[in-house]
Amino acid sequence: MKLTILGCHSATPLENAHTTSQVLEVKDHLFLIDCGEGTQIQLRNQKIKFSRIKHIFISHLHGDHFYGLVGLVSTFRLLGRTADLHVYGPKGIKEVLTLQLKLANSWTNYNLFFHELEENESTLIFEDDTLRVHTLPLDHRVYTNGFLFEEKPGLRRLDKEKIKNYDIPHYDFQRLKLGKDLILEDGSLVQNNKVTLNPKPIKRYAFCSDTAYNESVVHLVEGVDLLYHEATFLDAHENLAEKTKHSTAAQAAKIAQLAKVKRLVLGHFSSRYRDKSGFLTEAAPFFDAVELAADGKTFDI
Amino acid sequence: MKLTILGCHSATPLENAHTTSQVLEVKDHLFLIDCGEGTQIQLRNQKIKFSRIKHIFISHLHGDHFYGLVGLVSTFRLLGRTADLHVYGPKGIKEVLTLQLKLANSWTNYNLFFHELEENESTLIFEDDTLRVHTLPLDHRVYTNGFLFEEKPGLRRLDKEKIKNYDIPHYDFQRLKLGKDLILEDGSLVQNNKVTLNPKPIKRYAFCSDTAYNESVVHLVEGVDLLYHEATFLDAHENLAEKTKHSTAAQAAKIAQLAKVKRLVLGHFSSRYRDKSGFLTEAAPFFDAVELAADGKTFDI
Repeated sequence: MKLTILGCHSATPLENAHTTSQVLEVKDHLFLIDCGEGTQIQLRNQKIKFSRIKHIFISHLHGDHFYGLVGLVSTFRLLGRTADLHVYGPKGIKEVLTLQLKLANSWTNYNLFFHELEENESTLIFEDDTLRVHTLPLDHRVYTNGFLFEEKPGLRRLDKEKIKNYDIPHYDFQRLKLGKDLILEDGSLVQNNKVTLNPKPIKRYAFCSDTAYNESVVHLVEGVDLLYHEATFLDAHENLAEKTKHSTAAQAAKIAQLAKVKRLVLGHFSSRYRDKSGFLTEAAPFFDAVELAADGKTFDI
Repeated sequence: MKLTILGCHSATPLENAHTTSQVLEVKDHLFLIDCGEGTQIQLRNQKIKFSRIKHIFISHLHGDHFYGLVGLVSTFRLLGRTADLHVYGPKGIKEVLTLQLKLANSWTNYNLFFHELEENESTLIFEDDTLRVHTLPLDHRVYTNGFLFEEKPGLRRLDKEKIKNYDIPHYDFQRLKLGKDLILEDGSLVQNNKVTLNPKPIKRYAFCSDTAYNESVVHLVEGVDLLYHEATFLDAHENLAEKTKHSTAAQAAKIAQLAKVKRLVLGHFSSRYRDKSGFLTEAAPFFDAVELAADGKTFDI
């Protein structure tokens, strides 16, 4: 998995502070998560091929997470896109996108599927052979979901050294990968765990923005390899965080600590803080494997 | 009048090619004309005080002229705006803005007035003591208006040298400015044109984007001090211009020539042309007082 931050700032876009959007590369997928105004420019800056995006996940319908979507959908059309596009987001997203396209008299020339969300419990919203995506219900001023991206366990791996000791035909390798024992032609048993290794560990990425301090998400993100959690404010503005249903750096770190995640990345910074170092300082006492997001920064998971 | 180009490119925003938006300063007003995605960033780049914008004119509801509006309206709220905002644009603009604000559960804390347009003839849409704004019906794929910004004639100006020859009390100066003759206390007549000069010449600015070649606009923009006319294509793509209801540089120049305008500024360039010099070359044979728009460029009118 590779995460690229396109924007990690709250409220309004500035020339050097883009609002929330990020791209997650995993297996053959390139998922776009949130889409603030100007996301299409940031995608170009990162030289990301537009046609690779087939699934877009929108956490909530505040402008700084969403106002770039209709422009991107329109640009896909101008670029001659033919591949299907799937958009996952709160109920209402279909109506507003459709209205905008209707007023512009510019329907897409590709299939545009909306998957509207209104559940208040974690829900499986995407699944294929290799991956699952679940919603993470968050606590914000409007209906909001984070998203958990989770690889499925792969097949067992053949132990190339050990397998040489047996006369196993190639066509039986798949049985071994699936965890089955073999009986060879001479009647002897090959125990699976003698010739195979465990599957590669699966990777899990959790995106949690925007949200007030919300312990109910802890069990859903337990042990993830990387948690991106919003930290709009510092301690000095904890009252503002409470009022606007955002988190402080310390609160984000407490969630990471409780959930025993492997790494924490903070983002969604308020523009009032020119110097971002306070976010690290205030998070570290609770969780020390913490880093700050930055526009254009990538994280290998 | 002072015109600042925020963006003058068609279709999709790029990092160094912003879609249509411009600001016209005239008298005490700062009018915003069109509002492509990212306009709020361009306003900041030009250090334009957001609170000075009280009237926004939207030509049509294609994304490259309009998708930045909802973000700007939301940012006004975040900045604590209290002044009224007036938005002039095609019917439908109210519904789509209102729906987006409703889904974000973020109503404006200032008065937001929509003036929806659906006339097919030039219509007076704004007037105060010093200015008038009329629509300029254009020929595009969706309902589209250009806009004509026109100063009202000012008062006559006192001729300071000549007025010394008469014993005119100060409280009669306003009568002279209004063009009236005076009878002094000794019964003598002061003819107005003996002591006053003509008002300053009025200035007129016409914005025409997007439109196919459209001679019906000629009489409406006759003699304007500056005509901004779209020129999306060069001659080589005249067929595309026809198909998409846009203009070539030569067609824009023909309109300027027929309307005997004083200056022509071309904009709304297709991104297919890296070198923009062809727009000047192809316009000049028809109209030589021609210049190219550029993001951030200003024109004193």
